[in-house]
Amino acid sequence: MEEKLMLGKTVAEHLTDNIKVKVEDLKSKNINPKLAILKLGSRKEDDAYQRGAISRCEKCGIETEIVELSEQASQEEYIEALDKLNKDNSIHGILCFRPLPKHIDEEVVKYHIAENKDVDCFSPINFAKLMSNDETGFAPCTPMAVIETLKFYKVDLQGKNICVLGRSMVVGKPLSMLLLNEDASVTICHSKTKDLNQISSNADIIVSCMGRAKMIDSSYIGTDSIAVDVGINFDKNGKMCGDINLDDVMDKVSMITPVPRGIGAVTSTILAQNTLKACMQKNNIK
Amino acid sequence: MEEKLMLGKTVAEHLTDNIKVKVEDLKSKNINPKLAILKLGSRKEDDAYQRGAISRCEKCGIETEIVELSEQASQEEYIEALDKLNKDNSIHGILCFRPLPKHIDEEVVKYHIAENKDVDCFSPINFAKLMSNDETGFAPCTPMAVIETLKFYKVDLQGKNICVLGRSMVVGKPLSMLLLNEDASVTICHSKTKDLNQISSNADIIVSCMGRAKMIDSSYIGTDSIAVDVGINFDKNGKMCGDINLDDVMDKVSMITPVPRGIGAVTSTILAQNTLKACMQKNNIK
Repeated sequence: MEEKLMLGKTVAEHLTDNIKVKVEDLKSKNINPKLAILKLGSRKEDDAYQRGAISRCEKCGIETEIVELSEQASQEEYIEALDKLNKDNSIHGILCFRPLPKHIDEEVVKYHIAENKDVDCFSPINFAKLMSNDETGFAPCTPMAVIETLKFYKVDLQGKNICVLGRSMVVGKPLSMLLLNEDASVTICHSKTKDLNQISSNADIIVSCMGRAKMIDSSYIGTDSIAVDVGINFDKNGKMCGDINLDDVMDKVSMITPVPRGIGAVTSTILAQNTLKACMQKNNIK
Repeated sequence: MEEKLMLGKTVAEHLTDNIKVKVEDLKSKNINPKLAILKLGSRKEDDAYQRGAISRCEKCGIETEIVELSEQASQEEYIEALDKLNKDNSIHGILCFRPLPKHIDEEVVKYHIAENKDVDCFSPINFAKLMSNDETGFAPCTPMAVIETLKFYKVDLQGKNICVLGRSMVVGKPLSMLLLNEDASVTICHSKTKDLNQISSNADIIVSCMGRAKMIDSSYIGTDSIAVDVGINFDKNGKMCGDINLDDVMDKVSMITPVPRGIGAVTSTILAQNTLKACMQKNNIK
C-alpha cells in the first residue's frame, strides 16, 4: 500500500532543490534572501514549527532571524517590531506566529504587515490577491503545500471535482481559491453541511482540513479518488493523526497523503519558497 | 406559473421601506447620507444603471452626486478625483463605474478608494473582509442582491447545497463567500467544469452568473430546486434574457428569478443600503 502514499518529504526535497539553485543564483549577485519570524514568548507548538522552518531555510540557503518579544508585550510594541521588520531592507519575508495572545487584536495587526513581505498570507491584501488570482501575492503555506503536493504527484486538477472539507481562513477558504485558480470545480463543505459523505464520495479529490481526528472513513470516499489530509490531531493514545482514518480508506483511494509524513512536511518549504519569491520580486528578478 | 417567480421589484420595495425609515432617522439627527458616482465619459449601459441608482437613492432619501470626468482623463486625474471624494465629509458612499477605459489600470486604482466608502466592493480590503466574514465590509451589490432576494423569499440557506455557475470577481467568487457565510455548502463551477449538468442538477439551489444566453435548460436543474439567474444577456432577437431558459425549466423548479424583473431590479437598492451602512458606520450608529 506504500505506493499509494503521497509523501511530503519527497515533495519538500524536490522543491528545496529548485529553491536552492535560485538562492545560489541570487547570492552570486550579492542578494541574500532572509526570513524573519516574529513571535511573542515561546509556545511548544511554535517551537517545533520554528525548528522545521529554520532547518528548511538553511537547506535552501535562506537566512533566518527570530524576533522574540516577551509574552506580555503590548499591541503597540508588537506593531512597532513588525514595522521595523517591514522597513528592514535585509529582510524579505516575515512570518508572524499565530494565534496571537488575546491582548493583541489580530484583526488590527494584520493590516500592518508589509504585503510584499507577507510570506504566509496574513495581510488582507494577499487574501484579496488570492481571490483575484493575482500571482504577485503570497498564498498561505499550508494550502499552497496541498497544491504543490498534488502537482508533484502529477494530479491533474483542471475540471476535477474537488471537495474541500473545512472553511477556515487558514486552510479551507484560501485552498478553495487556489484550486479554482487551477480550474478545478470546488465544493466547500463544513460543519453545517448535510449529507457530507454523499457529497465527498462523489468528488474526484477530497481535501480534509477540519481538525477532527479520523472522522473521515471509507463512507466519505469515492472509489479510486484521491485524498489529501491536512488535519493534525491526536488520537486517544496521544498519537498524531489526521482527519482521515487511513486504514479504513486505504483500499478505496488511489492516492493519499498520510499524517504524519504528509502535507505538514511540505509547509516549511513553501515558507522558504515564498521568501525566495519575495526576495526576487523586491529585486525585480523573474 | 407566476407564483413561482421571485420578483426583484418586490424585494427592492421591501428593502427600500426599511432603508427609508433609517434614513429619515438619520436626517432627524442632521445626517444626510450621500452617494457619489464616479465615471469617465458616458456609456449607454452605465446611463441606464445610473438612472436606476439615482431614482432608487431618491426613493430612499439618499442624495446622489455624479462626478463625470472626460473619457480622456488620465489615471492621475481619476485617482485625484477619487481622493477628493474619499476626503469629502459629505460623501458616504462611492461607486466607481467599471469597466474603466484601457488607459486606466483598475489593478492600481482599486487600492485608492477609501474602504469605508467603497459601497460596491472595489477595494481589495472589502474582498478580504467578505472572505473572513467581517461584517464591517461591503459586499458587492449584485451578489448581495442574490442573498437578499433568497432571504426575502424565505429560502433557508443553512446546510443547503448551492451550485454557483461562474467564478468572476464581480459575482461568482464573492457570492460563494456570502453563501458560505450563510452556512450553505457551496460548489463553484465554471467553463472548465466537467459534467456541469450532473453537478448542478444535484444542488438544492443553483445560481447562474455565466453570461451565456439561455444556456441552462432543464437538464441542469434538479426537481423542485430553486434557481437564481444573474445573467443579463440578449437573445438572437435582441431581447434581454438570462442564463436560464425559463420556459424549459419552469415546470421543474419550485422558485426562480426571471430576467428581466429579477436580481437586476434589486442591485441598486443594495447600493442604497450600503450607502446607508457606510453613513451609519461613519457616525457610529448601529
